[in-house]
Parts: sequence; structure tokens; C-alpha cells
Amino acid sequence: MAEVWTVAPTARRLILASTSRVHGTGYLDHLEPHLEKLLAGIDRLLFVPYAGHDLDGYLGQVRQRFAALGVGVDGIHQAPDPVAAVEGAAAIFIGGGNTFRLLDRLLRDRLVEPIRRRVEAGTPYLGASAGSNVAGLTIRTTNDMPIVQPASFTALGLVEFQINPHYIDPDPTSTHMGETRDARLREFHEENETPVVALREGALLEIEGERITIEGEPGGKLFLRGSEPQPLVAGDRIDRRLPSSG
Amino acid sequence: MAEVWTVAPTARRLILASTSRVHGTGYLDHLEPHLEKLLAGIDRLLFVPYAGHDLDGYLGQVRQRFAALGVGVDGIHQAPDPVAAVEGAAAIFIGGGNTFRLLDRLLRDRLVEPIRRRVEAGTPYLGASAGSNVAGLTIRTTNDMPIVQPASFTALGLVEFQINPHYIDPDPTSTHMGETRDARLREFHEENETPVVALREGALLEIEGERITIEGEPGGKLFLRGSEPQPLVAGDRIDRRLPSSG
Repeated sequence: MAEVWTVAPTARRLILASTSRVHGTGYLDHLEPHLEKLLAGIDRLLFVPYAGHDLDGYLGQVRQRFAALGVGVDGIHQAPDPVAAVEGAAAIFIGGGNTFRLLDRLLRDRLVEPIRRRVEAGTPYLGASAGSNVAGLTIRTTNDMPIVQPASFTALGLVEFQINPHYIDPDPTSTHMGETRDARLREFHEENETPVVALREGALLEIEGERITIEGEPGGKLFLRGSEPQPLVAGDRIDRRLPSSG
Repeated sequence: MAEVWTVAPTARRLILASTSRVHGTGYLDHLEPHLEKLLAGIDRLLFVPYAGHDLDGYLGQVRQRFAALGVGVDGIHQAPDPVAAVEGAAAIFIGGGNTFRLLDRLLRDRLVEPIRRRVEAGTPYLGASAGSNVAGLTIRTTNDMPIVQPASFTALGLVEFQINPHYIDPDPTSTHMGETRDARLREFHEENETPVVALREGALLEIEGERITIEGEPGGKLFLRGSEPQPLVAGDRIDRRLPSSG
């Protein structure tokens, strides 16, 4: 995957969450302390709803949630010039939904490079679920159904690895013959070399420059080609566990 | 999806199975009576292992299984001219694994049109899991991880709808926030019109010309855009339930 360009990990600041919601709590509630830190001093963010279907409805939900944090929200789908909206954004949030639909729209609207440049320059980025998937090098480790065909699977490359959100451990009591998540990620490494950070629901990555930390009690797993999956627990430094080649 | 070409449903004969194996039984065991009917009078079939990774190992497993039915097996990956192998095949079996890897190889080896022509001319076709996915119009309703990027999601079009194999009903007790299968198929119909036949493990489609019957006690569901999913039980005629426009 050496041909895939990623941001220079200097000024970047990201929160990449496995899910927008954990069972029994409200939208983004489990992320609140991390959001307050990421968005300190920021009173407006640009929301990208393209993983969803009802874009105005999705924007309304997000507006209501961030109002409680004192942060106003603009929807990129309502911007007369979406690239200019990215270039002027104080912070960017890409929400969950279908990753193929999301990347397709980012590509068609030529938003990939502008978002990458802004994040490289230090604009805070929040991703949840599909919004975390597209922060990786490619969308090849999404769990989503390929309901639309994007021109490319290459994604934003805000981090130098793949994300697998909504990670779920194999269930030894299951009688279902469809592949477990671990089997799917092994298949990924039959065809690709890139490391995969799998995040259980409730876990997230906090990224500040070169420092990449997993947070949230559920933790996750690191999948490297040719190795058994390694457990990741809250506080682990992912950047120290990645192969130096990226 | 009117632009997608499918076989003329005249001479076609197919078995499309949800899975290669149901829990607690051996490889293809639950399909045995259907295989004996599909392959009556045939002593050799062409196996396409491209959904798998260890192609020779996969061929060995399939050879052993079909030896018990008195049917010899050639692996297309060992053929000096794969297109000629398709053109000379008495029957074609595409096995399970990863649907993206499978379709990518079918496209790169220019096998889509030759397989379509042979099935249209009456060559029996057996698909299991990924091999059933690619028999549909597109792979947009696969459950698999997009570990490689095929040039197109358009598939063999041996039937005039989409297949969703390994269908599993929503679990009302689940606390996992990832999308249920039904939610994924609703997302598909936000973006596409094509009907989807979802097959629970153990179910299969038996297709003879225009006649399309679901078999196997677990049954399945028919998803049509803008409607609630409809139950399908063994013996139901799918061709009578599809919108006439296809």
C-alpha cells in the first residue's frame, strides 16, 4: 500500500469512534469528554451527512446534539460551495451510516483532498463508524453492504492504517456459518498488508500528531498480516505497535 | 437497473445455495438431493475456486466431495485457457469465500460473458454463498468485506434479481449497534430498485427456465423496494412474486 498517500502526522487532531452510540445511551453520549477536549474553543463545525439517506433529518439530529455542547453545526450538503465549506471549517465531523455511499459522494464532490489538507493543517476531525472507516487508508475493512459503487476504495488517509469499527469478537456458541469478523480480517490480510485497528463499540482512537491512543473500556484488537490478533486496552499507544514501514 | 443484461430465462438450470454447509453437517451435504438432480447424467464439472485463497487446497476439498457423487472436478485455475474451459464445461460450480475477490478474478480473466452464455445455453450452474451472490445482477447485496476492489460490481446476471446469502433475522435481544441485515437491505433499496431474495442458511433456489422455487425448510425473505419484507417458505415460486418489470 506504499502508493497511498496519508497526511503527515504532525498537526493532526482526530477522534475516531467505533460507533455513534453504545447500547442504552444517547447519540454521541459516550464520546462527550473527548468531544469537549477536541472542540475546546470551537463554536461551529462542518457536518458531513453523506453516509446517511435523509440528509436534512440527519443534520437536525446532529445540530440538536451539539447545541448541548454549545457548538453550532453546518451541513455540507446545504453549502453552495462544498469545497469552500471544508476550507473554511473550524472542525469537521463525518457521521455514521453506509461507508460506500459516503465515499462515493466524497469522491464525486472532490472533497477527499480538501479534507485531507485541512486535517493535515490541524483542523479537528471527528469520525464515527463510517466516518472512522473513511479516515483510514481505504474502505476495504468496512462492515457495510456495497449498496453503491464508488470510483475507488481509497479513502481519506488521515491515519496510516485501516479501521474496523463495530468490532465484535467471535461467538463460540454461534451456529451461523457466515464468516466471523476475525475471519473477514484474515481474508483482508490474504490480499493486503496494511495494519487494521479494530475497535469494539464504545472504544475510540484519540490522535494528536504522531501519538495514537485507544480509549474506552471495551478496547479493541490490532490485526497485523501474518500474526495473531493482539489485544488493545484503553490507554495503549497504537503508534508504538505499528510496523515502522506503515 | 434496466441497463443490466441478464440471461434469457429459457434453458437455464441453476441451484443457488445460501451456504456450502449448515451447522453440524458436512460440506454440501444439505444440497445432495438437489445436486443429484442438477447433475444427472453429468460426470465432470468445472470448479471456480476464486472466492478462496488456497486454490489447490479448495479444489482438493471439492474433488473429494464430488467423488462421492461420481462426478470428476476440474479447477479453472489449472486450465491453460480458462475461457475454453468454460466453453467446454458440462457443468459449472462457483464456490463460497469472498465475493469481491471472486468477481475481481472473473472480470480480470474475462469469464463473465462466457459463463453467462453457457448458462443461457443450458449448462447446469451450482452456486454456493459467494457463488450465489455473483449469479445475481450485482454484488451490491453481499455480506462480504471489500478486501479487493473489482472494476465493477455488476455480476453474472444469471437471475433477474439480487441474492443475499447467509440471511439472518434481526436478533431482538442484541445490544450490538452495527446494522442488522434487514437495515442493510433497506439501505440497498434507498439506492437501488432491484428485488432481493434473502436465503437463510439451509435454503436454496432451484431454477429451471422461468420457474424459480425456494427450497429448504429455513426459507427466506423477499425484499422489494418500498415494501415490508415478505416471508418465503419452501416451495414458494419466486418468479410469481417478482415485479413484472424485473
